[in-house]
Formats: sequence, structure tokens, C-alpha cells
Amino acid sequence: MSTTQLQSVLDRIDSDFDNSLERLFTLLRIKSISADPAFAGDCKAAADHLAKDIATLGFKTEVRPTAGHPAVVGKLNGSTDGRPHVLFYGHYDVQPVDPLNLWHRPPFEPVVTDHADGRKIIVARGAEDDKGQLMTFVEACRAWKSVTGSLPVDITIVIEGEEEVGSKNFVPFLEANKADFKADFALVCDTGMWDPNTPAITTSLRGLVYQEVKIKAASRDLHSGVFGGGAQNPIRVLTRILGGLHDENGHITIPGFYDGVKDLPPDILAQWKNLNLTPESFLKPIGLSLPAGEKDRLLIEQVSSRPTCDINGIVGGYTGEGSKTVIPAEASAKISFRLVPGQDPDKIRQAFRDYVSSRVPGDCKVEFIDHSNAPAIALDWNMKPLAAARKALTEEWGKEALLIGSGASIPIVADFKNTLGLDSVLIGFGLDDDNIHSPNEKYDLKSYHKGIRSWARILAAFAEAK
Amino acid sequence: MSTTQLQSVLDRIDSDFDNSLERLFTLLRIKSISADPAFAGDCKAAADHLAKDIATLGFKTEVRPTAGHPAVVGKLNGSTDGRPHVLFYGHYDVQPVDPLNLWHRPPFEPVVTDHADGRKIIVARGAEDDKGQLMTFVEACRAWKSVTGSLPVDITIVIEGEEEVGSKNFVPFLEANKADFKADFALVCDTGMWDPNTPAITTSLRGLVYQEVKIKAASRDLHSGVFGGGAQNPIRVLTRILGGLHDENGHITIPGFYDGVKDLPPDILAQWKNLNLTPESFLKPIGLSLPAGEKDRLLIEQVSSRPTCDINGIVGGYTGEGSKTVIPAEASAKISFRLVPGQDPDKIRQAFRDYVSSRVPGDCKVEFIDHSNAPAIALDWNMKPLAAARKALTEEWGKEALLIGSGASIPIVADFKNTLGLDSVLIGFGLDDDNIHSPNEKYDLKSYHKGIRSWARILAAFAEAK
Repeated sequence: MSTTQLQSVLDRIDSDFDNSLERLFTLLRIKSISADPAFAGDCKAAADHLAKDIATLGFKTEVRPTAGHPAVVGKLNGSTDGRPHVLFYGHYDVQPVDPLNLWHRPPFEPVVTDHADGRKIIVARGAEDDKGQLMTFVEACRAWKSVTGSLPVDITIVIEGEEEVGSKNFVPFLEANKADFKADFALVCDTGMWDPNTPAITTSLRGLVYQEVKIKAASRDLHSGVFGGGAQNPIRVLTRILGGLHDENGHITIPGFYDGVKDLPPDILAQWKNLNLTPESFLKPIGLSLPAGEKDRLLIEQVSSRPTCDINGIVGGYTGEGSKTVIPAEASAKISFRLVPGQDPDKIRQAFRDYVSSRVPGDCKVEFIDHSNAPAIALDWNMKPLAAARKALTEEWGKEALLIGSGASIPIVADFKNTLGLDSVLIGFGLDDDNIHSPNEKYDLKSYHKGIRSWARILAAFAEAK
Repeated sequence: MSTTQLQSVLDRIDSDFDNSLERLFTLLRIKSISADPAFAGDCKAAADHLAKDIATLGFKTEVRPTAGHPAVVGKLNGSTDGRPHVLFYGHYDVQPVDPLNLWHRPPFEPVVTDHADGRKIIVARGAEDDKGQLMTFVEACRAWKSVTGSLPVDITIVIEGEEEVGSKNFVPFLEANKADFKADFALVCDTGMWDPNTPAITTSLRGLVYQEVKIKAASRDLHSGVFGGGAQNPIRVLTRILGGLHDENGHITIPGFYDGVKDLPPDILAQWKNLNLTPESFLKPIGLSLPAGEKDRLLIEQVSSRPTCDINGIVGGYTGEGSKTVIPAEASAKISFRLVPGQDPDKIRQAFRDYVSSRVPGDCKVEFIDHSNAPAIALDWNMKPLAAARKALTEEWGKEALLIGSGASIPIVADFKNTLGLDSVLIGFGLDDDNIHSPNEKYDLKSYHKGIRSWARILAAFAEAK
């Protein structure tokens, strides 16, 4: 393929961008919240919509059932043999929108608006995670198809509907249909840039163990005037246990938690120090100033290479307006651990459960619910398509693309390796201030536009690198 | 008045009991939840209904505005001078009904049903607290009026609508209208019996300091994959602080908390030991077996004469179905302290706030909301009307009426003393298993029936004791 051909594709992306935006908006208007069964129909609608759209690009497309929300699978093979074959992965499901009162606009009515610092942004639930991101790839394919009538590599697209709830049904679906997902490597578009001007490829991901804990005491809610002092209070038990998960220095106190965790190699640590991730640059935009993790670690280690523990939710007793002197019958919390290479999710899960169970007093019962259980991932920094993608990203953004570690978990990367034997290249255009999983989620208009252009270049680079 | 006259009144109560029950049901159907502004109209409706009903007994009745929900005031003076004048107090407001899913029936559709052990019970929000209790007095007056055309003593009835939210507006109303509430002493019907067969008069009450705490960290909800480990988590901060409120032995760790708390006099302690309040009798009915208070105290001390701390509610982050990897911007809890004589509510409030504030890390802000702030009460065991009431109760129930301490707080008792100079006699027919402030609140049918008969006797005894 010629440089002229690529330039025509990039020009087409620019001239068609208003339509690309409108197509993203159509997808964003679908309330595909996977966590809430009330939105199952919307999840199906999102799958149907994407299948129909991708079919127009020449893909042979199906909406495939799973034991949960369906997956969209599209296949496009070129006429010539021996072309690279990539498996592109995204997810159409989104996080719940609560607390709804903190959104400035309805979460499923996307708009382009101005960020406080002047950036143009797309605001909606899923604007970034992952509808905006997956549409950068779809729109790049559309531009190639429109200009050249074909695509530069063979592509299988798979878009799942349960990423936000742990892909419990998607992984068995992959396992049962391995033959449909043969490829040379996988592309995952669910990660971020280093900053608004610096592209990045993510080469390590933290794992995730997510547990829900419920403490039960009396057989019913009690009046604290009658029983206070004599009856066990499950909120007291829960706060006592959870309040002890970190010590004064921010270390996690669960026995064995740090087993297998290695320090960064000195050269990587030196490189990361040079990135100069400061509280001023990283925490100030979210109203904070003090790194809250292990006191003996750099901030960039705290958020990238060190394991963590967060309480993501807690509830018990009376939480409405005013006061109520109740001792509730139960209280519960959701706790997640970000894991790093060397940590075994099954062992962490069990160590946490043992930690809690051993601290539950005689009169209380404890119940656990599993949500996620995924190990950390360290990718091969020297794999071939990674170099090609890095060069293409550098050309599009005019700045060297960085290889970075992500604090987040994308369990599908391990599943692709274990189930299909595929390595993944993780490229995305999200930013730290995108408010994913939060009210007022956004995606920079520039991320969307240059993200599409980036994929157009990357597909060309893959074709040439073969 | 003659014994025959009293017997006629008691007979009338028995023969009219079905109607007494229907009148209680009418009141129970009104959703007078004072904590939730959405039910302000229902509170007004309850006041109007009671005023209209009490007026039919010959009381000069008004619905009087306060800065919050209105109060009902009814006055009945006899034609003869020098009769005792009692001020009867009750409240028509009720607690919120959540968690609604734990109610076996709609909370505002009262029924008479069978308790598991065969007792007949009235089930509804407010069945005991305080609609059932206040109606025992109203129905006793109705029987006297119906049989004799008058009442044996002068009575002012006042029924407020904000007891469950701390009587913030009722006390200034009393203060501003002192002249309307002149009486010899007050009667408060908001307490319990010793057991289903043993009547009691409450002579001490714990105080109540109720605080709401909100911890705020980042300016918005965060994704734990991006910020986990680096950004402060307000649930972590809150659980750490609240989890430290009790030590291993169940003592409260706030500096100065026990200042001024006295041990029981040996004779009272000996008497209480004889009451034989065991985990088997007190905790087993609620599914528990281990006293959860200070390990070096008797269970009856833990729930009656010792100060306590309970977390009545906690909420933060994602609490819906499934999982969400959020670090919330804030978390909050409601905490209450039951106080005993010798403790100063203002000092406890401040000591708690200092305890929390000194433990909030640099990046977090803390906010407090006041709910209640009432001292403990110790009544005079030798006051004259108390002896008369005790004799009347003993006659009705055929068992010696006990003088007991209550773990609950009835702040109005201190307000009557401070504002109006009145001592209170606290008599009620509640039971520990009435589920007040909880789902499936109930009042024993026997409590209601013999409660009405008890008041009929007590009014006669007051008239004679003068």
C-alpha cells in the first residue's frame, strides 16, 4: 500500500468526522448497563446495533448468545493469503450511572461540550469506556473500506457485553468457540494515553480480586435504646475489620498479601522516575495533594506497580435523611484488590476471607460473594506488532509513544492468552480525567478524532510489518 | 369516687374494646413519618385526626403550629377546684419504614395477627411507638367520660409530631407557651413493661448524642484502576476511624467518654442481679447469645446503666448489585451515644468530634451534622404520684410493678423539667420484642387492652392520692 493511500484514508477520516461523531452518539444513547438486569434489553439492543453497523463495512457479522449478554462477532478476510490477522476486542456494556444526582446532564444523552480548560469533550456514560474507544477502531475500518474498498489486514472483531461485570459468561463463550477466534494477536482498545498529547501502549496491567462481604448479627433490626450495649452491631464489626486492612504506613495488613511481589528492575524504576508523575500533576486535578498509598513508594509505583486494596462500597443501617436509632441486622461492603505480577488471585482471595473470618465475633455470621478474580499481566515489550504500532502512534501524535504500566485490570488479556494463546497489544486514547465509572464520564474530542486516525495508521503499519 | 364507679369504667373498656382497636387502626393508617419531608402532609393529617377525636371527650382541643410538624393540645378542667392536674404526653410521629422488603405486610395497613408463641399482636409501624401507647390513655379517658360524664382529674394532653427526629421544634414551642402547660406533674407513655406479665415504671433514662459524620476526599468519584493506591479513599478513612471507637474489651476509646459515670449503688446492683437478665432470656429471642458490651459489666448494666456507642448507619461508594471499581468522593455514617447520669452531652459531642477530626488525614475534609443532644435522666423514686401509679398497676396486672432503668432516651422528660419545672411519671406497656424502629413493629393486644385498663385505674388513684 502507498503513503498516498494512507493519506487518502486520513483525509477521509477528517472529512467524515461529523458523521463518525453522530454514529458514536447513536451507540451512546443505548443504556447498555450490564450490572443491572433491568437493562438486559438495552444490552441486546447495543449488540444488534453494532452488528448491523459492522456488517456495512464488509464484515460477516453475528450477534452470538452467551449465558449472559450477547457478544458481537464480525469477520473480514482479504482475498490474498498470508496477511496478518488481528482479533480486535472491545465491550459495548457500561457501568451503572449512580449517583445520578452528580451528573450535570442525563448520562445517556451525549453532547460535545467545553471542558473547563478549553478542551472539547464528549460527555456521556460510555463516552470513553468503552464505546468511544471501540468506535475509534470501527471508524478507522470504515475509512479504509470507503477509500480502498477493503482493509489492509484480516480482522476478527469481537465486542462483548459483560466486561464491567467480570466477563463471567464471555470467557466460557471464547473457550467453546476457539476456532472462531484464530488470529496472530489481539488488539484491545480499553486503555489510556500518558497525557492529552502523548500516546502510550500499555504493557502491564494489574490484576483484580473483588469480594463482597456481608456481616449478619441479630435476626432483625433492633432499637439501640433497648438493645444498645448488649447486642452486637454488624456495622461496628465491619468497620473494625475493614479499618484494620491498612497500617499507619499504608501497607496492607493481610498476612501473605505481598508474597511474590517484586520490586521494579532498577532501569525501569529510573525511567519511571523520569516521567515525573507528581501529586501536583496527578492528584491536584481531582482535588487531592497527598499520595495515599505505601509511604515508602513513589506515587507512580503506588498507582502502577504496587498492589492495592480499596473499599468500593459500604452500606448498613439507616442511611436516609435525619436519624434513626437502629442497630441493623446486617451490613455489607465491596472490597477490591489490584494485583501485580507474582500475586496469585486465588491465594489473595483466600487470605482476605481468612482475615475477615478470623475477626468476626462469635455472634456474627459472614458471607462472601465473588465478583472478579484476575491475575496481573506483564506483556512482552519486544513483540513485533508492538513496535509497528508504536511507530504509527508516534507519527500520528508527533511525540514518542510510551510503553507504560496500567493500574487498571483488563482480565480479558489473560483470557486471550490462556484460552486462545494470543498475545495482546493494548492501545487506547483515554485520559486520567475521563471520569470513567463516575458521573460525567467524558472522552476528549481529540482522543476520538486522532484515535480513529491512529488506528488507520496502525492497520497500515501491521500490514507492512508482516 | 367509688370502687363501683371504677369497675363500671373497666367493664366499659372491655365491652368497647373492639371499637378501641378500630380507632387505633384509623390512626395507624396515617403515614406520619416525621423524618421524611415527603410525609409532612400525613403528619398534619395525624394531628388533625387526633385533635378531632380528643375533642369528642370534652377536651378543648387545638392543632398548634410549631416550626416543624404541628402539636395537638387538649385541655379538660373539672368543675371542682383543687383536683390534681396532669400533663399527658405522647407523639403521633413514627420512624421511617425502611428496609421495606423485610416487612411481612404493608407497614401502614394494621392487622391483628398471631405471634409465633400464640400471643395476639397488632402489627403496623407505630403500633407500639407511640400511637398504640398514646391511645391507651385516650381510650381510658373515653371510658371515664362515657361512664361518668367526666374525668377524675384535670388533664392537659399534648401530642407532638417530631419525637422521632429529636423534638427540635417542640421544645421551643413548649418554652414559648409555658402558661398552657401548667400541671402538677407529667405522664409520659413511651416506655415498656418488664416482661409480658410484669408492669413497670421507668425511673431512669439514658441520654442520647446522635451525630452524622461525612468524610470527603477527591472532588469526584474515581476509578480504582487509575487512582487506586494513590488517591485517598473516604470509606477507608471512615472505617478506620469508626473501627477504633471500641477496644478489645468493648470499652469506648474516646478520651474522657466515661468522665462522671458512676457505678450503681451496691443495693441497686444487687436488686438488678436478682432480675436475672440473661443472654438466654434477652438475646436469644433476637438470634444472639453473647453480650456485646463492656466485658466487665453485667448484661443488665450494659443495656441500662452504662453508656454505649452504636453506628446506626453507614454508606459510601457503590452499593447496588454486582461490582463497580469506584473510589467514592465521600462516605458518611450516623453514630449515636447512649448517655448515663453524670455525662455531659455537649462534652461527649465535642469529644467525639475531636476524636474523629484528629484522625482525618490531610487530604480529607470532615463535616458533622447534629441530630440529638440529650442528657440522661434519673427520676425521684419517692415522688407521690409514682406510688399511686405503682399501686394501680399492681392491681391491674396482679404482679408487683417494678421500678426500672431504661436504656432508651426520652429527651422530653428533661425538657419538661427544665422548661416547665415538671417531674414526669413514665409508664408504658411496650415489650422488648415489639420491633420498634424496625420492620414488623407490633404491640401486644394484651398491652393495648390492659394498658387502657391500667390508665383507668391510675387516673382514679391520682384523684384519691391528692
